[in-house]
Amino acid sequence: MTTSLLRVPPPQGLLRPLAVPERLLLGPGPSNVPPRILAASGRQLLGHMHPEVLQVMDEIKAGIQYAFQTRNQLTLAISGTGHCAMEAALLNLLEHGDTVLVAVNGIWGQRAADIARRLGADVHELLKPPGEYFAPWDIEEGLARHKPSVLFITHGESSTGVLQPLEGLGELCHRHGCLLLVDAVASLGGAPIFMDQQEIDVLYSGSQKVLNAPPGSAPISFSKRAREKMLRRKTKPPSFYLDMSWLASYWGCDGEPRRGGRQEVPVSIRDLLPPLCPQGLESSWERHQANCTLLCQGLRDLGLELFVKEEARLPTITTVRVPEGYNWKEITAFLMDNHAIEIAGGLGPSAGKVLRIGLMGCNSTSGNVDRVLRALRDALGQLRRSRL
Amino acid sequence: MTTSLLRVPPPQGLLRPLAVPERLLLGPGPSNVPPRILAASGRQLLGHMHPEVLQVMDEIKAGIQYAFQTRNQLTLAISGTGHCAMEAALLNLLEHGDTVLVAVNGIWGQRAADIARRLGADVHELLKPPGEYFAPWDIEEGLARHKPSVLFITHGESSTGVLQPLEGLGELCHRHGCLLLVDAVASLGGAPIFMDQQEIDVLYSGSQKVLNAPPGSAPISFSKRAREKMLRRKTKPPSFYLDMSWLASYWGCDGEPRRGGRQEVPVSIRDLLPPLCPQGLESSWERHQANCTLLCQGLRDLGLELFVKEEARLPTITTVRVPEGYNWKEITAFLMDNHAIEIAGGLGPSAGKVLRIGLMGCNSTSGNVDRVLRALRDALGQLRRSRL
Repeated sequence: MTTSLLRVPPPQGLLRPLAVPERLLLGPGPSNVPPRILAASGRQLLGHMHPEVLQVMDEIKAGIQYAFQTRNQLTLAISGTGHCAMEAALLNLLEHGDTVLVAVNGIWGQRAADIARRLGADVHELLKPPGEYFAPWDIEEGLARHKPSVLFITHGESSTGVLQPLEGLGELCHRHGCLLLVDAVASLGGAPIFMDQQEIDVLYSGSQKVLNAPPGSAPISFSKRAREKMLRRKTKPPSFYLDMSWLASYWGCDGEPRRGGRQEVPVSIRDLLPPLCPQGLESSWERHQANCTLLCQGLRDLGLELFVKEEARLPTITTVRVPEGYNWKEITAFLMDNHAIEIAGGLGPSAGKVLRIGLMGCNSTSGNVDRVLRALRDALGQLRRSRL
Repeated sequence: MTTSLLRVPPPQGLLRPLAVPERLLLGPGPSNVPPRILAASGRQLLGHMHPEVLQVMDEIKAGIQYAFQTRNQLTLAISGTGHCAMEAALLNLLEHGDTVLVAVNGIWGQRAADIARRLGADVHELLKPPGEYFAPWDIEEGLARHKPSVLFITHGESSTGVLQPLEGLGELCHRHGCLLLVDAVASLGGAPIFMDQQEIDVLYSGSQKVLNAPPGSAPISFSKRAREKMLRRKTKPPSFYLDMSWLASYWGCDGEPRRGGRQEVPVSIRDLLPPLCPQGLESSWERHQANCTLLCQGLRDLGLELFVKEEARLPTITTVRVPEGYNWKEITAFLMDNHAIEIAGGLGPSAGKVLRIGLMGCNSTSGNVDRVLRALRDALGQLRRSRL
């Protein structure tokens, strides 16, 4: 070979084999991935229009319909994180000048409002302090005042640990000519949700929480009302990647011959949903509730104060106030360094105020509750002693 | 348990274990994934702010800088496909009313023009028939006439099999006050590209072509000129997920403390780039060129007509005209059914006209050239006989 034309050398670090430490991931996500899904991630690829892949896509669709409790035809998985699904929901539903009402009681409402403004929507916010939730009359007042075409609300507010009650909200929205858009990234599979019975128009989640899969596949579904609004659009959404008219065709949701999408589907996402099937959704909800109750009791026994009132606690992510005299960063670092357990501090409006402990999917066990409580007891003792 | 509230039953199909057939993927992507990367995909997850992950991100960044031959600080991997990176490039660079010139000689130029229009840009197209490429004077005339702020051009046009020469285009664009945006999804690692020396302002690729990884991680890099244009924006881009100001912070590209992104990074993407390192980029380019030359000779020996002139053939994806009297669908189906080999028909403007054969990354071997030529010879013989 002649003299090399390369000016930038190859990085030596990449040639070392990668070591991934064993860790118990009890933060707000990702959660640990069980062997079945890890094995699926390690399988060979297929082409995105191969018959086996199209069949897998149909199975994924049926799995999401079960997890969402919906019969919506327009149900599919987006190749992106839960955050990407939030954008897909907003950018397909909203057009420049549309009025949207966003219920903000944590970071996800803030984020949805930010994205809706980027899309040129007329955004109104309903505000509650972090740790609180919205009552139907709060929502009704907002609907009557702002006359939005879309209401955004978060079912599982992972930044604060709040589970938003959804009963009656769909009917309320529809009485006001508004669509109901629900973020269930942190709650799906861990707390009951019934898309059709609760009249939710757009629902989405992520893969790396209760579903215990790597990030990168986000289930989403649209009601007939939501599809009708999208069909009435005067302008195309500002993305081709997330344009539902194309995705619907690729996923065979519109009764026409499929058009090849540009979103290759990792076959492994088929393995997201079975954990919810053999044991059943209801048993998964019960398990998450039972282990959350155990955890809350244990945290109180340690003298800690829970951040959210009992009636609105998210069963997948529990928040406690950072105890007086402690620094949250020292506590999370202690658990990571001494117990190989991840828990998290707050995020957005809860930053600095809380610790967050996630028990999601296969991580929601009484053994893990014991393990994290022992580690916390150790941390509180050691860190107090180091100050004396 | 009381009576079930579930109205949608669990799908039985998902409970069957998934069987993934062995296939040689010689279409335009995805390509086969070698054992090293499959094993990495099967590793446990870490949190997106764990120190190991931040280090992996630095290593990925250095790997992309090597593959792109750039020293750009703003170099990272997006959590999405190559198509997602195209959107990220366009939506960060362009604002409503910006003038953009798109070189269209296949589907990727068409797609970029579509996305730019969705973003409200003033889009002008430079057109060439599929199979042809642009000369510097074609580009210069377009720049002088339309005075765009961005020129989009495709290095490896996977729909037609054309490799676009890039020499001098960066300098030309800069003389006209325009930025050069290059799509290298199908060419990176298989054909020489020198981001800094060729004065390319934005360059992106995908993971499922020459890099032989699952889809879902897309390398991208921005020059100083491109960053300056982004800093001058009057409006935020219509996406938070792909907003470079956030991604730059999460990837530690702006010299400030990192802000947690909402794009969890699959640790396995660290294993994308090593295949380019030990053997070296130049050896990879030579191997792709040598096997493409072997394949072209073999195709001519079968009596087939190559679609692209010799001086502009993409070494990763070769296009031949569908031979007279044959249906392309019967040929691709024959190879899939009888030889477990995927090759593809045309796409967009080349649909119905060509067959496409990809030899990418670990799939670019003389053994695979022999295998696909034998399979094609068999197909042409058998399908002819069945007509007699």
